[in-house]
Amino acid sequence: MADPATISPATLLKDELDIVIPTIRNLDFLEMWRPFFQPYHLIIVQDGDPSKAIKVPEGFDYELYNRNDINRILGPKASCISFKDSACRCFGYMVSKKKYIYTIDDDCFVAKDPSGKDINALEQHIKNLLSPSTPFFFNTLYDPYRAGADFVRGYPFSLREGVPTAVSHGLWLNIPDYDAPTQLVKPLERNTRYVDAVMTIPKGTLFPMCGMNLAFDRELIGPAMYFGLMGDGQPIGRYDDMWAGWCTKVICDHLGWGVKTGLPYIWHSKASNPFVNLRKEYKGIYWQEELIPFFQSVTLPKDCTSVKKCYIEIANQVKAKLGKVDDYFNKLADAMVTWIEAWDELNPSGASKSSDLPNGPSK
Amino acid sequence: MADPATISPATLLKDELDIVIPTIRNLDFLEMWRPFFQPYHLIIVQDGDPSKAIKVPEGFDYELYNRNDINRILGPKASCISFKDSACRCFGYMVSKKKYIYTIDDDCFVAKDPSGKDINALEQHIKNLLSPSTPFFFNTLYDPYRAGADFVRGYPFSLREGVPTAVSHGLWLNIPDYDAPTQLVKPLERNTRYVDAVMTIPKGTLFPMCGMNLAFDRELIGPAMYFGLMGDGQPIGRYDDMWAGWCTKVICDHLGWGVKTGLPYIWHSKASNPFVNLRKEYKGIYWQEELIPFFQSVTLPKDCTSVKKCYIEIANQVKAKLGKVDDYFNKLADAMVTWIEAWDELNPSGASKSSDLPNGPSK
Repeated sequence: MADPATISPATLLKDELDIVIPTIRNLDFLEMWRPFFQPYHLIIVQDGDPSKAIKVPEGFDYELYNRNDINRILGPKASCISFKDSACRCFGYMVSKKKYIYTIDDDCFVAKDPSGKDINALEQHIKNLLSPSTPFFFNTLYDPYRAGADFVRGYPFSLREGVPTAVSHGLWLNIPDYDAPTQLVKPLERNTRYVDAVMTIPKGTLFPMCGMNLAFDRELIGPAMYFGLMGDGQPIGRYDDMWAGWCTKVICDHLGWGVKTGLPYIWHSKASNPFVNLRKEYKGIYWQEELIPFFQSVTLPKDCTSVKKCYIEIANQVKAKLGKVDDYFNKLADAMVTWIEAWDELNPSGASKSSDLPNGPSK
Repeated sequence: MADPATISPATLLKDELDIVIPTIRNLDFLEMWRPFFQPYHLIIVQDGDPSKAIKVPEGFDYELYNRNDINRILGPKASCISFKDSACRCFGYMVSKKKYIYTIDDDCFVAKDPSGKDINALEQHIKNLLSPSTPFFFNTLYDPYRAGADFVRGYPFSLREGVPTAVSHGLWLNIPDYDAPTQLVKPLERNTRYVDAVMTIPKGTLFPMCGMNLAFDRELIGPAMYFGLMGDGQPIGRYDDMWAGWCTKVICDHLGWGVKTGLPYIWHSKASNPFVNLRKEYKGIYWQEELIPFFQSVTLPKDCTSVKKCYIEIANQVKAKLGKVDDYFNKLADAMVTWIEAWDELNPSGASKSSDLPNGPSK
């Protein structure tokens, strides 16, 4: 494991990380991120009307996929990629050939730390991913690998090496990530509290993973980062990242990997429309009361030794146990399997560094 | 549950909370705490030579117990109270008749928040105890009941009422609570990071509970707050609060109560001697590698519906499973039972408000 205290601040992992951005508009927001993002390769997943041209500011290295590209590359398997929903971003995870992914929404800007300095969110995510996690025991002084911190008295020494970190979940200043009911009740609430901490979410504990400011080790956990069926033609929206988070956490717990949350913050500029959100969410708000106990009680057999095996097993259990909640979950379970098949096509084993696949036909 | 946003800052719970201080010296440190502690009743547990007079600054309302008092009040059962170790503080929990306890070490001073303002640690602990906990699902914006925060998108609505809070674990600026090996390796490390957060430690996760700056609901969890056999005549020290924390967390998880950690900070002024600490700790450092898995796998039967029943059950399991690690754990298991018997004598059911017991004879 790298010692995070020695990680260089400059363009870390430049050739090993892709930035995935789902969007329906020109990417002017990148101007503010230029000092931090320009050295990296961007994968832009254009949602909605594919005939619309998306402008990307000069000087960025990027590839862009619209719906026509997705259909052409995946063929019939394109059905697993959501349309008219930012869940489409997961197509970018699939076509990337890099070890790490950072994904960010196009209404997220550079936040400032309490000293007024611009926060390099990507650098913090990379530090989080390159330093170990501690899911088996809670450290009261937060991230023990951070400069100036350590494990406190009473922390077992056998657990101090930690485990690999699969996910780094960042937070948001200004507009908090609230559901529609909370948005409606507290329209003026803004998050102004900068909590200077990164922590591992303990093993066995689920959390609401937000896709707005998220990094992960694609080689470790990529196939579990499926954002489900949302948006056009589907009964729900705004549960794409939640679904991915529940599946991911259960698999990380099973395989012994860590999920961190906390720093870095981005500045979330604009609250989405709570009335529209309520329409997208209301079934999810109801269903999640059954989904959470389901994911809390999922157990994966010992022979599930890879992410893909774990993921297919979860898909089977979704069909067996959640199909009765709503037929949507049967479709979702099928789409989870299709997602893994599509992932395998674009990422044949042993060819993870190949660069001739993403733009070719899927068959 | 009280809305913490509406909790008055002034002398909250004045008649419902005792401050317990173990000490071997004059309590000059109270001068700095006067604005915050003076309205409250203090229970001072004098450790070491009972013939030494401990000076308490003018104007504080207190009762003081030395070893002679403990022996007189508990008779043969006084054997469960440690001598020459700050673990003796738990005698103060037993003789208190109040609903809440705050305990603090006499080398802890008032810390300042980042704005330079003195932190009223007791007020923050009371806010923590009076607002619910959320042990069943992680909230990424930390304490959802705090002003300016809430539950984030994807947090199940059925869990948003929370559960009663049993424990509030506060932190330390300046000297961190490190074990002897870490003290030796990092003699100059100081905690300067003020993390502006309170969070619930998730169900099923153990943590290292430090007794330096700790508050709890005595009516809920008091009988589990036994600080074990440490110090004089015992093979270990500095695991008193850890032991109490492991027992307490397992019982809170079983009974559905919450344990919080984070704010408030106190200023920990002086590192204890790492060489002395190493002598006290070295068996604990070794034993904890077996203790943690033991506590992680403890299951309490359904008929353990009270803290005392849970605690006796844990004592039985300690004897059955840890006795083979070292005979010390057989003695400790017996002392755990004695502690409950002594607790019952001083706190007969239905008489929890009685004020004539603590100074009376034990029989």
